[in-house]
Amino acid sequence: MCELLAMSANVPTDIVFSFTGLAERGGVTGPHVDGWGITFYEGKGSRTFKDASPSSQSHIAQLIKSYPIKSEVVVSHIRQANRGCVSLENTHPFTRELWGRYWTYAHNGQLSDYEDKFIVSRFQSVGDTDSELAFCWIMEQVLSEFGDKAPADMKPVFVFIASLADEIRALGVFNMILSDGNYLMCYCTNNLSYITRRAPFGEAKLIDTDVVIDFKKETTPNDVVTVIATRPLTDNEQWQVLTSGEWKLFALGELVNG
Amino acid sequence: MCELLAMSANVPTDIVFSFTGLAERGGVTGPHVDGWGITFYEGKGSRTFKDASPSSQSHIAQLIKSYPIKSEVVVSHIRQANRGCVSLENTHPFTRELWGRYWTYAHNGQLSDYEDKFIVSRFQSVGDTDSELAFCWIMEQVLSEFGDKAPADMKPVFVFIASLADEIRALGVFNMILSDGNYLMCYCTNNLSYITRRAPFGEAKLIDTDVVIDFKKETTPNDVVTVIATRPLTDNEQWQVLTSGEWKLFALGELVNG
Repeated sequence: MCELLAMSANVPTDIVFSFTGLAERGGVTGPHVDGWGITFYEGKGSRTFKDASPSSQSHIAQLIKSYPIKSEVVVSHIRQANRGCVSLENTHPFTRELWGRYWTYAHNGQLSDYEDKFIVSRFQSVGDTDSELAFCWIMEQVLSEFGDKAPADMKPVFVFIASLADEIRALGVFNMILSDGNYLMCYCTNNLSYITRRAPFGEAKLIDTDVVIDFKKETTPNDVVTVIATRPLTDNEQWQVLTSGEWKLFALGELVNG
Repeated sequence: MCELLAMSANVPTDIVFSFTGLAERGGVTGPHVDGWGITFYEGKGSRTFKDASPSSQSHIAQLIKSYPIKSEVVVSHIRQANRGCVSLENTHPFTRELWGRYWTYAHNGQLSDYEDKFIVSRFQSVGDTDSELAFCWIMEQVLSEFGDKAPADMKPVFVFIASLADEIRALGVFNMILSDGNYLMCYCTNNLSYITRRAPFGEAKLIDTDVVIDFKKETTPNDVVTVIATRPLTDNEQWQVLTSGEWKLFALGELVNG
């Protein structure tokens, strides 16, 4: 199993607090020691920090915890390898360009008997994980369904992706985060929760390490920030727990479907 | 104008020394203050560190200088914006996947009247630079020439890319670095030099900052390391200066064409 973390916000927001909790699960409070990665969108651009070493020991994870990159959309993953060896090319998140946007994806779970289903040519895997191949297959289906240009309304694209995710879920556990930089989608098989924070902001206390934050001091009254994680990161707030086959779409921190 | 830096080596090698010199040109000894980026290949995987702030002040550049990532192929760029605003999406290097490999590209120079030439659909620009669009066009032509699967012999692909670069050079200044993770190609209009270091290794002294390295202490006798830069980074070694239209292809540190 791996851990997923994602954020959608209406103002550039740093994810240091949540990442600090997640990173502990990479070798301290969790067994996820086979690498980690985090993608920050800043406008249309994105940058991904990755390391094949455990997040709790990584120099680069230290940087992320100490250097607050402000972003509207974040996708992060820490890995415990099941399919595919421990290597940089197998480290999530994965990114591909479609329609002049970077699409970023991370997966928690394990799939079986997928080789005959995931036939791709336009988007090919670089590594050898079930996760990356599923992503390439999704992108290939989206291109084939909607063509070379992005539709004016992107919501039907995510409805279509949810239907693909239903098919993939038939092959195993598929908890997924996907973003095109504007929208943030999550799809649940058995392990996804989210919380939307807005005024009045309060204190939050991490489960995985002894850190408390007072969001009142870090925010303005108009901020809306949604955080998604495989398991809740704080123990004094009410997280929404998704059920099998459920998916959510967020933009600028707000839920825009479901 | 921007600065390019790249490396091809037969063993995983860190580029801290050369990057330290290059980073000074981002705001200290050079005017290139509009962001920087560096891509490291490790096996088939790659990771890119980018920042839209000057390399001489960047927290992340500090990390790269202090944390030696060992890599067989590196592509780096510091930017002084001419076309396209200063933003993360316009920061080089750019990466796209083709044939199950990550292709990484950086450009120095400026192009004109390119809009009618660079028609793309399969690979689209995310930002609005001439550089990224030229890259997308190159990738699109390569796909169209060689099809969905990588040829067994990759050298004809780079010969073809050099012919595309000749066409692009007709539109302005096109100094380019391109890699698929195995091969490292450079193409010159007016500003590219390289050096291949091998035993017996000696001392090298950076031009841009007061740093001397004794490569004898950092290497083994079998190491072969080629470094490419827009302008030589050291002043006590003999760099090879490329002429207009000249290009070189390296693999595992060795020149394999030209």
